[in-house]
Amino acid sequence: MQFDYADGLGYLIHPQNVARYEDGVVRILDRRNYPMKVDFVECREYQEVVQAIRNMVTQSMGPWLASAYGMVLAARTAGTMKPEGGMEYLSRAADELGRARPTTSAFQVRHMQQILAVALQAIKSGSDVERLTLDFVYTRLKERYEEDQKIGSFAAGLFPEKVKLLTHCFAETLLGYTLLEARKAGKAVSLICPETRPFLQGARLTASMAREMDIPVTVVTDNMPAFMMSQGMIDVFACAADVVTLDGYAVNKVGTYQLAIAAHYHKIPCYILRNPSISEPDINEVQIEMRNPEESLMALGTRIVKEGVKGFYPAFDITPPTLISGVVTSSGVFSAFDLKNHFQANGA
Amino acid sequence: MQFDYADGLGYLIHPQNVARYEDGVVRILDRRNYPMKVDFVECREYQEVVQAIRNMVTQSMGPWLASAYGMVLAARTAGTMKPEGGMEYLSRAADELGRARPTTSAFQVRHMQQILAVALQAIKSGSDVERLTLDFVYTRLKERYEEDQKIGSFAAGLFPEKVKLLTHCFAETLLGYTLLEARKAGKAVSLICPETRPFLQGARLTASMAREMDIPVTVVTDNMPAFMMSQGMIDVFACAADVVTLDGYAVNKVGTYQLAIAAHYHKIPCYILRNPSISEPDINEVQIEMRNPEESLMALGTRIVKEGVKGFYPAFDITPPTLISGVVTSSGVFSAFDLKNHFQANGA
Repeated sequence: MQFDYADGLGYLIHPQNVARYEDGVVRILDRRNYPMKVDFVECREYQEVVQAIRNMVTQSMGPWLASAYGMVLAARTAGTMKPEGGMEYLSRAADELGRARPTTSAFQVRHMQQILAVALQAIKSGSDVERLTLDFVYTRLKERYEEDQKIGSFAAGLFPEKVKLLTHCFAETLLGYTLLEARKAGKAVSLICPETRPFLQGARLTASMAREMDIPVTVVTDNMPAFMMSQGMIDVFACAADVVTLDGYAVNKVGTYQLAIAAHYHKIPCYILRNPSISEPDINEVQIEMRNPEESLMALGTRIVKEGVKGFYPAFDITPPTLISGVVTSSGVFSAFDLKNHFQANGA
Repeated sequence: MQFDYADGLGYLIHPQNVARYEDGVVRILDRRNYPMKVDFVECREYQEVVQAIRNMVTQSMGPWLASAYGMVLAARTAGTMKPEGGMEYLSRAADELGRARPTTSAFQVRHMQQILAVALQAIKSGSDVERLTLDFVYTRLKERYEEDQKIGSFAAGLFPEKVKLLTHCFAETLLGYTLLEARKAGKAVSLICPETRPFLQGARLTASMAREMDIPVTVVTDNMPAFMMSQGMIDVFACAADVVTLDGYAVNKVGTYQLAIAAHYHKIPCYILRNPSISEPDINEVQIEMRNPEESLMALGTRIVKEGVKGFYPAFDITPPTLISGVVTSSGVFSAFDLKNHFQANGA
């Protein structure tokens, strides 16, 4: 498979490395250990993909691809079954893969439904369901990277010629293309990554991605950005979101909201890089995933508190439209209050 | 030595454990590893105490006591020297101990000068300089704990009957007495501690202190408090400061400023627990300590970033008086804008 549309993005977010499919095996780059270790988790049943997504083997846009290949696994198995049983099996796979994590489930279920439709059609027409499903995933993958590139290009257009850019967590291809497009436009970007506890995606993933793209990058702890803003060390705050609702709320990795408040206080623009989700018109329909509190009491596998200390781990938080300077989509930059006028009917 | 004034404070902040002096040895509880390990660093020369403070073996109010015992070590050595040489040696010790870390140096130098005066007097009068210096340190220690108790009592007076209290880093006795006094006043306090990267003082120290005092406590990562505020999970933000300047700025562990902004945004009061420093009338005179950036790229001794990623580590940040709802001192609660009218002349 050629992925030339990903040229220049570096190792970590190249689609070949995010996750790959070959002969009944999905290999997902284990981002929990990157860059300290480069390991792939192997899945031979779609249920293993569901579990890997739940365990955060991959996150950000990673589940999008891993779940798509999970459908290819399911298609392969379905191909060995009688048509009716195969179709039922595929529907169950789409549902379980789509709902692996609650906050992104509306978006992900919709993504799975698109793949399911192709797989069901293949079974009905007696075609090679694994092959046709995989081809469709490759097509969608290319389309998504092209969409992300457009978002990156619009984002880069908002930057000054020289920009100290704060991000949060790991915006994957959305930030990767933004950096690529900014450089293409001759802009000098230096990146500041909050480390993003508890899983340190900012330090381990975003900063690694920047290094692989030869972008100067500084990692700080999650409590430092406001001080840096007060010292003139940050010009723009831009991050992705797991969900952008049509009423203008950005649901993203916990901490985004705190940074958006700090940016607002310092009159620094806050941009959200993501197409709104037409499946989520209203913030009240989004469920914030509460993860096992013990996960937030660990650092690199070591428990850092005394017996009897409680934890709390909301995986995401909600940034309201009043704190968002612009939502950067593949069709341009919009006011967070104006999304319904542009995205109601024509898809996310 | 009896320390009955510290009854109820638990192990970690009991003066006997913060640091102790015995026969020419200062033993400092190594807070870098607590509670995973309970180790004491032993110092036999005052220079080793300076180094221990620099290496953050102890922090918050810990250096106040460790440096005082460092002066006792110096006094013991000075007692074996000719008077003139001994006095010179003691002066050098006071200066080096006072300046071990830049941000708190004005306050610490003043503290050392008080002890130095006693030690020099002892030499001049031919008395036992080690004994007299140690006695003075014990007197000052008791006075300080009594001052901190007053601060705790005034702070507790600001709380509602039931309070979800957010703090930051490790406010040691100032928070310890606040919790004790709140309980004495019949108030139900539950504590929320941001873990305070990179050294995790909130998770390791503040939460341990609360457990040892049987106060319910939840630890969260540094990026979660704003979300908790938005969910009604925090009523009051209160922390200490390494320095409160007379013009109303609080210099405290990096992250305080970010939380103060978030509290302000959510209309949650922000209290600073600390007597202002009359040695620092003006925020411009305070130097923010920039520590080795590599320290912020480590988690529990493991480097978490790729080669070539830069770090940045301001140990403190500055919260301006506009974000402070009250400065809680041992003489009462004051507006941050009113400090000069109360503390100019009468000491910190």
